[in-house]
Amino acid sequence: MTVSRQKIHEDGPEFSRLAWGAWRLESDPDAADPAKLADKLEALIELGITTIDHADIYGGYACEAIFGAALKARPGLKSRIELVTKAGVALVKPARPNHVVKHYNTSKAHLVASCERSLTNLGVDAVDLYLIHRPDPLMDADEAAEALTKLRDDGKIKSAGVSNFTPFQFDLLQSRLSFPLVTNQVEHSVLHLAPLHDGTFDHCQQHRVSPMVWSPLGRAALFGETGERHERLRKVLEEIAGQTDAADIAQVALAFILRHPSRPVPVLGSGKFERLQSMARADTIALDRQQWFRIWEASNGAPVP
Amino acid sequence: MTVSRQKIHEDGPEFSRLAWGAWRLESDPDAADPAKLADKLEALIELGITTIDHADIYGGYACEAIFGAALKARPGLKSRIELVTKAGVALVKPARPNHVVKHYNTSKAHLVASCERSLTNLGVDAVDLYLIHRPDPLMDADEAAEALTKLRDDGKIKSAGVSNFTPFQFDLLQSRLSFPLVTNQVEHSVLHLAPLHDGTFDHCQQHRVSPMVWSPLGRAALFGETGERHERLRKVLEEIAGQTDAADIAQVALAFILRHPSRPVPVLGSGKFERLQSMARADTIALDRQQWFRIWEASNGAPVP
Amino acid sequence: MTVSRQKIHEDGPEFSRLAWGAWRLESDPDAADPAKLADKLEALIELGITTIDHADIYGGYACEAIFGAALKARPGLKSRIELVTKAGVALVKPARPNHVVKHYNTSKAHLVASCERSLTNLGVDAVDLYLIHRPDPLMDADEAAEALTKLRDDGKIKSAGVSNFTPFQFDLLQSRLSFPLVTNQVEHSVLHLAPLHDGTFDHCQQHRVSPMVWSPLGRAALFGETGERHERLRKVLEEIAGQTDAADIAQVALAFILRHPSRPVPVLGSGKFERLQSMARADTIALDRQQWFRIWEASNGAPVP
Repeated sequence: MTVSRQKIHEDGPEFSRLAWGAWRLESDPDAADPAKLADKLEALIELGITTIDHADIYGGYACEAIFGAALKARPGLKSRIELVTKAGVALVKPARPNHVVKHYNTSKAHLVASCERSLTNLGVDAVDLYLIHRPDPLMDADEAAEALTKLRDDGKIKSAGVSNFTPFQFDLLQSRLSFPLVTNQVEHSVLHLAPLHDGTFDHCQQHRVSPMVWSPLGRAALFGETGERHERLRKVLEEIAGQTDAADIAQVALAFILRHPSRPVPVLGSGKFERLQSMARADTIALDRQQWFRIWEASNGAPVP
Repeated sequence: MTVSRQKIHEDGPEFSRLAWGAWRLESDPDAADPAKLADKLEALIELGITTIDHADIYGGYACEAIFGAALKARPGLKSRIELVTKAGVALVKPARPNHVVKHYNTSKAHLVASCERSLTNLGVDAVDLYLIHRPDPLMDADEAAEALTKLRDDGKIKSAGVSNFTPFQFDLLQSRLSFPLVTNQVEHSVLHLAPLHDGTFDHCQQHRVSPMVWSPLGRAALFGETGERHERLRKVLEEIAGQTDAADIAQVALAFILRHPSRPVPVLGSGKFERLQSMARADTIALDRQQWFRIWEASNGAPVP
Repeated sequence: MTVSRQKIHEDGPEFSRLAWGAWRLESDPDAADPAKLADKLEALIELGITTIDHADIYGGYACEAIFGAALKARPGLKSRIELVTKAGVALVKPARPNHVVKHYNTSKAHLVASCERSLTNLGVDAVDLYLIHRPDPLMDADEAAEALTKLRDDGKIKSAGVSNFTPFQFDLLQSRLSFPLVTNQVEHSVLHLAPLHDGTFDHCQQHRVSPMVWSPLGRAALFGETGERHERLRKVLEEIAGQTDAADIAQVALAFILRHPSRPVPVLGSGKFERLQSMARADTIALDRQQWFRIWEASNGAPVP
């Protein structure tokens, strides 16, 4: 099987139905060898996972360059993947000695400079999608929009989007742009249902934007954590795995996300190829409505109203 | 007296200012006799309550047919009432043996088929208003809108609306329709003030939509329940009953709802004609602002800010 | 130094960057002497604080007339200040013997009459800005808009705005007006961050409306109150005062507000000229992003996400 593909917005990129998150490359011993990382990317592309999710800050500002080394080692890869990266969060790290507190920065200067650094680190001329990583309470929407417009006009980003934005924040930034924001990357999983009822996914669907989804497996809490809610959920996921072609509860938990009509794109965080290979099968698991609602009910711990 | 009438939207139906909810017909011994139910409907029409609120699921999918039998027994009734029904909730009931969990279904196939079943059960060619009963987290707005459009084009529904929707959910569905949604039926009472401040009624008023209101007497909790809040409320309602023409606190509690500028239509749930006859008098009780705010304050348990 | 100035909306008035709130005149012994109050106003104007914030209800309906006496005593002042007043709250006070409960009133009759009383009390032909003081759950938006339109057409108010409105309430009223609402006056301070994340300031910025801010120093709780949060905040504000030209933590706390891209106008509540003179210096304190986020973090009691 190969993971299917979809446009995330009429004017946005075509992505693989599941993306891979490169946020842990820095602690992955294999990734230190560009050839090994290139091999893994080849295997992911083979699997159909071609969309790679980055942020300038991942690995303490280190992951993009690690990834870039693999692209340099295997130049043919570039044209076979879609690159997403983000900016706007500023970490206190040795690589940023003037930072004294974690903060957000959506100034034009920062968004432009951060993108240019990302391109250098990744070793590419452009990214397919550039996201503002967090809603910045100090965002000057005119300035942020100017930055995105300039980067797009200069060919450095092909599309723009946001992450963790409320509908109000999305509307504010969109109101200053002459082109559409094509995604809102938010947290969602069987353990985190908020975007289903707080307006986030309604707003995405209204604007025909496919959300991207981070922590689609609930930061792995789904698998190990004890407690009534987690155990209740695992039980239901296991039953549904038994009713479908799913090999494990992770596939069911991902299929739960994929079922939403806004067509979310989960970003898989695992570094292990075998895990990713298994998770990719979620794309073939079609939950029916009642299976989906059993999971919803188990997560809420209360009957459907 | 006769209950007054109002259009619920410029392009929507004219309703009686108070509607009757047919959700308990199944447990009403009198309703088992079509002639007796027809007599009750005659009496309600006499009273001016001509708008009847149904849902496919009421009485475990049984109420519409019970009502339909009365319409069949007394054919002249049809043209003197306005019928509302709803779809989109799926119950686990003997009548639906393939349901394993309560869930929502706003697929085109379900919304169309459910409407057709409702028309058959009610024995009518069309309903005046067709509502999506609950916000379905899996609602594909294009599909739901296609269903409503087809039903309207086919003459099976005269208007469409929603129930229990947030403004975001309302805007999403409205964005896919070429005709206006004409109501949002929500919970509201002196015990449930949420729609007054969470945007629901603001949004209704902005779009010149009259909400319909379910549980307008707080599921009867208002009358029997003990506890500080209920007792405080009853005391204030009684005082205000004494200041107005109201015969009891139910009339005041309904007048509280009727006072809102969005012109809500309460759906009265009682099966007893005498109760309905008494409640209908709420339409003649005009609370002044200070009476209204005394109730609001008593419900909040804190002074007006 | 002189406090800087800004338009609060393209079609709205030009205000001083900090406004003065006249809500305590009634308990200010000096204000009882019109000449003394006029002297204070002269001094404020000298300082650059020319925007004066009133409401009909301040001082139990007494403050506007006290202020008006000073304007009468020193007629030249009128043309050198901008007057804001508000209506729509009804207090239980000797001056309003028919009020039995605090309530809101946004009827056309009340909004027009209240404005006319304010003009009489202030002794002016018009106010620069007229605000609906609180969101009235019984607001008939057509009626409230008619009142504002009439007052504007009659030259009694130059601009209109709201106070304490949610985005939904703002949109509702705006939908009935042919001219823009130019502000939303809300509570905000280092102790009250809600408008930064609940959509209020996003909505203001989207509509290019500068909010006005009441209780910008957290009702003075910032200075005296004990408890972990207050002490943590004071410590950070003191550190930042040491890093900037700020003389005290009040200046830093105001600079925190002034830093927002929607360009909020804090309304200073102090009656003491020396305090106001000191606070005015906040206009010259430019916090950098990291200073701002240190305060945000100290207020939240948790790291930036």
